[in-house]
Amino acid sequence: MALKSFVEIQPDSHFPIQNLPYGVFRPEASSEPRPGVAIGDYVLDLSVVASAGLFDGPCLKNSDCFKQPNLNKFLGLGRPAWKEARMTLQKLLSAAEPILRDNASLKEKALVPMDKVQMLLPIAIGDYTDFFASKHHAKNCGLIFRGPENPINPNWFHIPIAYHGRASSIVISGTDIIRPRSVFEMKRTSGACDSYESLKGKATQLPTRCPILDLLAAVVGPGNELGKSVDVDEAADHIFGLVLMNDWSARDIQAWEYVPLGPFLGKNFGTTISPWIVTLDALEPFASDAPEQSPSPLPYLAEKESKNYDISLQVSIVPAGHKDAFTVTRSNFKHLYWTITQQLAHHTINGCNLRPGDLLGTGTISGPEPESYGCLLELTWNGQKPLSLGGTSRTFLEDGDEVIFTGCCKGDGYTVGFGKCSGKIIPSQP
Amino acid sequence: MALKSFVEIQPDSHFPIQNLPYGVFRPEASSEPRPGVAIGDYVLDLSVVASAGLFDGPCLKNSDCFKQPNLNKFLGLGRPAWKEARMTLQKLLSAAEPILRDNASLKEKALVPMDKVQMLLPIAIGDYTDFFASKHHAKNCGLIFRGPENPINPNWFHIPIAYHGRASSIVISGTDIIRPRSVFEMKRTSGACDSYESLKGKATQLPTRCPILDLLAAVVGPGNELGKSVDVDEAADHIFGLVLMNDWSARDIQAWEYVPLGPFLGKNFGTTISPWIVTLDALEPFASDAPEQSPSPLPYLAEKESKNYDISLQVSIVPAGHKDAFTVTRSNFKHLYWTITQQLAHHTINGCNLRPGDLLGTGTISGPEPESYGCLLELTWNGQKPLSLGGTSRTFLEDGDEVIFTGCCKGDGYTVGFGKCSGKIIPSQP
Repeated sequence: MALKSFVEIQPDSHFPIQNLPYGVFRPEASSEPRPGVAIGDYVLDLSVVASAGLFDGPCLKNSDCFKQPNLNKFLGLGRPAWKEARMTLQKLLSAAEPILRDNASLKEKALVPMDKVQMLLPIAIGDYTDFFASKHHAKNCGLIFRGPENPINPNWFHIPIAYHGRASSIVISGTDIIRPRSVFEMKRTSGACDSYESLKGKATQLPTRCPILDLLAAVVGPGNELGKSVDVDEAADHIFGLVLMNDWSARDIQAWEYVPLGPFLGKNFGTTISPWIVTLDALEPFASDAPEQSPSPLPYLAEKESKNYDISLQVSIVPAGHKDAFTVTRSNFKHLYWTITQQLAHHTINGCNLRPGDLLGTGTISGPEPESYGCLLELTWNGQKPLSLGGTSRTFLEDGDEVIFTGCCKGDGYTVGFGKCSGKIIPSQP
Repeated sequence: MALKSFVEIQPDSHFPIQNLPYGVFRPEASSEPRPGVAIGDYVLDLSVVASAGLFDGPCLKNSDCFKQPNLNKFLGLGRPAWKEARMTLQKLLSAAEPILRDNASLKEKALVPMDKVQMLLPIAIGDYTDFFASKHHAKNCGLIFRGPENPINPNWFHIPIAYHGRASSIVISGTDIIRPRSVFEMKRTSGACDSYESLKGKATQLPTRCPILDLLAAVVGPGNELGKSVDVDEAADHIFGLVLMNDWSARDIQAWEYVPLGPFLGKNFGTTISPWIVTLDALEPFASDAPEQSPSPLPYLAEKESKNYDISLQVSIVPAGHKDAFTVTRSNFKHLYWTITQQLAHHTINGCNLRPGDLLGTGTISGPEPESYGCLLELTWNGQKPLSLGGTSRTFLEDGDEVIFTGCCKGDGYTVGFGKCSGKIIPSQP
């Protein structure tokens, strides 16, 4: 029989007792940030649970990791502590367990209605890396930018390609995204540098507008020492869980700047993550075989078990001035070519150190069909095919547009979900 | 008459009273990290100076910024506080001022012999960006990798090209650098993936060895809010000072991975910085006109006064098994094409936020002459011309080689210098 909580869970809730994702919140505007887990329409305040002495296992009994303003210390403790916390919390919240259920005053203190809290960034992010791990996305980008002869660069099939992103501009879901001022807008205010327009070629055809880029990101813990690689078969022990991530991109800037050092201003003006980190333990029932890799991976990337998770992903847009959201794509995490464990093993093979709270984005995850393409660049085929959105249309995002990601796994009678990850584009500042 | 300190300064010291660079140190192995400034052969302990109530100006009087384990809080206070600290310290250390000079017990507590202290990373680095701002270096790399037709990509002349580096693997001078294990070494242990050798082209010709890459990096403070650009003419107020930086690179890995997202494993295994941050105020007497820019810069990069600093840079190598250092290149910061203020203005034009303690590397700074080329890739012309080092020779670095950077400005009767930035390559770990 399925595990049940004494907390009432709506049938379509993303947060049943099988999930228990971690976040950081303030119960009131004036309170200190503290860790919590989502359960139905509530947030369980882990600082209250810890103060009540209910984390009584060997890893957490004497730890102050739930008295911190972020989850980094907890992530640093590693999988034994994560498993212990999950076991403790599932027991505490289960319908059969009276400790919290029957203690009205503790329950009132510990369970805060989710619609009353302010969610914050759950982690202090030291470094953020973004991979380019979806084959369909890589192929579509290559077809758009380089043509049909060699859409995917040969190195892509041998190593997970990635770049370092910007940690400072990662914001929590719900934060407005300020449209980037770009070199192109600046140019229009002056007659300088007319000549570079001719050099820029294709890129000038794009308006300075943000397309979207959808993905998930792995949250790292406990990390590795500088110089010591993580074996691919042990890499899962260095991944606490996943968040939804929207790595907003200005493709016109990116196209102009990316040779030879990769994306920079086209990406670093903002990245949105969802407030809830869904643990790998909660995702385990939804594991699925990763796509076959050909050529076969290099020895340090060859894993005994190569798996993804069956997570349905959906992107919708609320166009400026509208109230309704229109779904623009449905994709799935299971399409990922390079697994998150391969990504992590690759990241550390040269000795690079990861720290608790680091983020590894998967890059846009596109499926094989046009309706599963992951970003507006692909969906509109570089602006050539406008998307119809309830009477209006878009090639790229306009000011006032809100983009909403959701993701969930369907279990037997329950849903393990990520909640939502949203952001609205607002005009650039003078 | 030149300002003099009561602390004896050797004629060739990098640390006269005109300099006063900032660092973080432990007086003894068991003591807490604290900020200090270098003066001759001593470190002045700023936590002691603060506790004695000697920072009595309006910005610093009630601040605990010198009771911190890094300089970030001080950097966050901005230029008025930086100027006030410099004025206070120059007065306190001057030959004419009795407060510290004549207080034997305070002097003994505050001035710690430099050879007794342990230097630490002076800042908590949130994000590290590396620019590619030297024209001679860009041209040489282009000639090596792309041939003589278009050695420099057209975008380079219009915007300062940069990539996000890895903050976690930045280490303090003197830390050994563990040779990166690479995809190529892994390959040799197995028969897998024979086919990718043929795809890799030129890159397979390089041994998996570290060349060096020399540069300086600007230390950011106080930073800007997300969405608010910094005007190029105000950018100097966001740069506290400079450090020497060696962004170690494995060019064979880099050549294989960098298309299309830029350098990743070829760079993120280690970056060394010098312990002392030399302030822009100390460098001001050595300001020099930046090279003329053609085409003229875009409006947001056009600055009223475009300046570099006349800083002589020298790189030497102590080959494994040798005791002596051999100078391999002499360059100068004044050769930089894109100034550090242009770099900072560019970084924020799209609204990207910088935080106190962020690092902006200049990229390798090469001069116009072969003996001023900044990295081994250029000096050996991609390994084709071995460098002779006292009876031995190098194309790329070998295990046991130590690389030492120094940099200084020659004043009238004094030197403002950076000390040294060194690291030794040690074998990769199994």
